[in-house]
Amino acid sequence: MIRGTTTLIAHFGDPIAPVKAPMIFNPWFEQSGIDAVVVPMGVRAADYPATLQAVFRFTNIGGALVTMPHKVTTAALVAHCSTAARIAGACNAVRRRADGTLEGDIFDGAGFVRGVQRKGLQPAGARALVVGSGGVGSAIAAALAAVGVAAIGVFDARPQAADALAGRLSGYYPKLEVRSGSNDPAGYDLVVNATPLGMNPGDPLPLDVSRLAASTFVGEVVMKQKITPLLQTARDRGCAIQIGTDMLYEQIPLYLEYFGFPKATADELRAVAQLD
Amino acid sequence: MIRGTTTLIAHFGDPIAPVKAPMIFNPWFEQSGIDAVVVPMGVRAADYPATLQAVFRFTNIGGALVTMPHKVTTAALVAHCSTAARIAGACNAVRRRADGTLEGDIFDGAGFVRGVQRKGLQPAGARALVVGSGGVGSAIAAALAAVGVAAIGVFDARPQAADALAGRLSGYYPKLEVRSGSNDPAGYDLVVNATPLGMNPGDPLPLDVSRLAASTFVGEVVMKQKITPLLQTARDRGCAIQIGTDMLYEQIPLYLEYFGFPKATADELRAVAQLD
Repeated sequence: MIRGTTTLIAHFGDPIAPVKAPMIFNPWFEQSGIDAVVVPMGVRAADYPATLQAVFRFTNIGGALVTMPHKVTTAALVAHCSTAARIAGACNAVRRRADGTLEGDIFDGAGFVRGVQRKGLQPAGARALVVGSGGVGSAIAAALAAVGVAAIGVFDARPQAADALAGRLSGYYPKLEVRSGSNDPAGYDLVVNATPLGMNPGDPLPLDVSRLAASTFVGEVVMKQKITPLLQTARDRGCAIQIGTDMLYEQIPLYLEYFGFPKATADELRAVAQLD
Repeated sequence: MIRGTTTLIAHFGDPIAPVKAPMIFNPWFEQSGIDAVVVPMGVRAADYPATLQAVFRFTNIGGALVTMPHKVTTAALVAHCSTAARIAGACNAVRRRADGTLEGDIFDGAGFVRGVQRKGLQPAGARALVVGSGGVGSAIAAALAAVGVAAIGVFDARPQAADALAGRLSGYYPKLEVRSGSNDPAGYDLVVNATPLGMNPGDPLPLDVSRLAASTFVGEVVMKQKITPLLQTARDRGCAIQIGTDMLYEQIPLYLEYFGFPKATADELRAVAQLD
């Protein structure tokens, strides 16, 4: 129930119709008696810089979620960026500091890492391969570096994207072993598909599954289907897996904490979400 | 249930906490299956011009409700104003035209008039006294002029405010008989209190009730109590009356129509409203 006292969490994107966050956050706010609401705001790229400033001057703004096409722009517009946001080159959350300036962070990667940790994988000291060096792949690599993996391999069909990510990782984490240019999963404890491959029928697999060891944990970012061909194959080979929506739900508690709301778990959030 | 497809009706004000419109509109939208939501946005006066423009560039904006302190400013910021808004010197609703420009209107007065019409008073040809020449009194006078009253008396404790309103009424309605300077209700078919008198215990009555004829219809804008001392006295004298919240509910159907939503009646809206 929205009232004049309700704290707004803006959700910026364009197109705005496909966004799902309102159906995750708002049922949780309602069930928990938290007087807040996620409000989708469709903002065109050209309007975004002025709109970000205007909305954060609302007296009842509590933060913002940011999705396509504004995630990269946001990193340039806020006064302060987390290390993860700098490595990803993108923000998906913005809040106002006490001094009035804006700061941005990105939680896709941290959500992914929370998920695998909850499934028993301890990333500290592990060797991880992240296939796909776009926004989400960069965020996952950054989050893995932050929790102390020993080595990260990065790969992208556009080699320069992978090389650039490798450079940013090495810059922020000089002790991290970083390799670029191979999607061979052999020898890794954790392998992540951070490409869109698996969204459409007939997509090739993102890596050579015959090289996957049963001891390797395989994670996925594709959410369109629960068990993608990669996850199916990995499971058949005996690998532990993480589905795409786990990354989604595991990052919601991080946003809640970032915006100053009471704590919640991914399971609690998933239980009340009203996604189709 | 807010989704990415939901049309936003911004509600601008400062302070924003006291606004009531969300608790009237939103339960109606929900019950009617209308995918829209009124969102309170607290905007300081200095931020308002830029914010109005930014919010109306949202791809999912359907209109705006405007309350204190932005109603007068809005009339100067929109490209087009209705006659009622020009006479009132204020807007409480804004929508975007097909050509992208903004237009404003004000519905307090029209809501008041709809209420008295529903109670059987036909304002066309009637003589009306409006006590109080501020925003709401000006809007009521403008709406009465628009439906063809024969004569309007205006009065305000600040004589220049009443004289200015009289001048605007005469300018837009040259055939209307307009008098300024007296709050004597004798000889009027309709008398309206459009001052705040009646909000606080011990307030003086806004006019000399001993001069009220039983045939005079008495309307009120004060909503803090249902039966104000003025309404109580008028009723005791045999007058038909209209309470303050009738004006409120009777204007909601006008906003809905202005923003392009399906029709509703004040009674339907009142039945689902979740005001305290």
